[in-house]
Amino acid sequence: MFDQMGLDINIVVFDGFEPLDVFGPFEVFINTDGARVRLFSLDGPGMKVGEGGVRVETVGPEDINSQGVLLIPGGSGTRTLVGDDQWTGQLASLAARSPQVMTVCTGSALLAAAGVLDGRRATSNDLAFDWVVSTGERVDWIKDARWVVDGKFRTSSGISAGIDMALAFVEDACGSQAAEKASMQMEYIRNRDSGYDPFA
Amino acid sequence: MFDQMGLDINIVVFDGFEPLDVFGPFEVFINTDGARVRLFSLDGPGMKVGEGGVRVETVGPEDINSQGVLLIPGGSGTRTLVGDDQWTGQLASLAARSPQVMTVCTGSALLAAAGVLDGRRATSNDLAFDWVVSTGERVDWIKDARWVVDGKFRTSSGISAGIDMALAFVEDACGSQAAEKASMQMEYIRNRDSGYDPFA
Repeated sequence: MFDQMGLDINIVVFDGFEPLDVFGPFEVFINTDGARVRLFSLDGPGMKVGEGGVRVETVGPEDINSQGVLLIPGGSGTRTLVGDDQWTGQLASLAARSPQVMTVCTGSALLAAAGVLDGRRATSNDLAFDWVVSTGERVDWIKDARWVVDGKFRTSSGISAGIDMALAFVEDACGSQAAEKASMQMEYIRNRDSGYDPFA
Repeated sequence: MFDQMGLDINIVVFDGFEPLDVFGPFEVFINTDGARVRLFSLDGPGMKVGEGGVRVETVGPEDINSQGVLLIPGGSGTRTLVGDDQWTGQLASLAARSPQVMTVCTGSALLAAAGVLDGRRATSNDLAFDWVVSTGERVDWIKDARWVVDGKFRTSSGISAGIDMALAFVEDACGSQAAEKASMQMEYIRNRDSGYDPFA
């Protein structure tokens, strides 16, 4: 569905992001023909510090295609951001404009806190599951899943599950050959079953 | 063997590095108790630009524990660096001091070009294999492997294989419980067989 116009992927980055939540899907998309990936932060361009002290540069929200695909990682930074109504409000506004929204790990808590997932099926990190559930009581949380698709929302379980979700998205958006090519170039042994969750 | 003194992991970063080659193992190590990970560049502190345009901050070689574990990613930047004798010489010097040296993907070409892998068994990215072989004619290249261990050198196949190699290293260095914990926290479904290579 995207191959005519190209595929813009916007990954929102914040202090305390989990590195592989970002760079697993990032690697999938840079191995997908026609996709462009940008790391951005809602409070403007600058450096963000992830788990383990990694520092990455981001552009501001004015530098992305606001109608691109939105991807939201998790990480310890989500614990404070769920209480930041201005931040989650901005995120909700971007999610509303985006044709596809993906979360990895505790990234789903950020959408849940903004009310965006109310009435929808979603999943999250198994180890942080109870906390995530508390951020969105009206969400139909599915614990036993590697990822969950509900309409334009795709939410994945912990960290590495984001890679499988991203590959499945590429398959839906660009075809199975594109997903095969990306996983072959990454030498990634795919988990294709969204319901298989050995960590639940 | 490292749990008494802590485990310093130094990941060398250069323009044209492959993001998941760095951040797959990075995520393994930040989920390993007692490990500290640093991204450094041989030409001093600054920003390095990886595939897909990602910009990450590095420290200089004077800011790392030069007797720590050295990890070398791959990426398109290796194509020019193999011809930079000063750069590969500095890398060889660090490799000589390091108790453990790991490469991901075409990172093994950088060690091979410096002569460090002469007479040793090693592997690399399957898709770039012929080029990598040309960088070190005296290396005993093993195509059909997810990763190869020869003495203190551990070389892995393409991109994602670095995660499996890093987890196997944690198992050897810190015990099987440490590796289990890291893979569980990452929700990563491990490939434990170093000889299994569906991409060869």
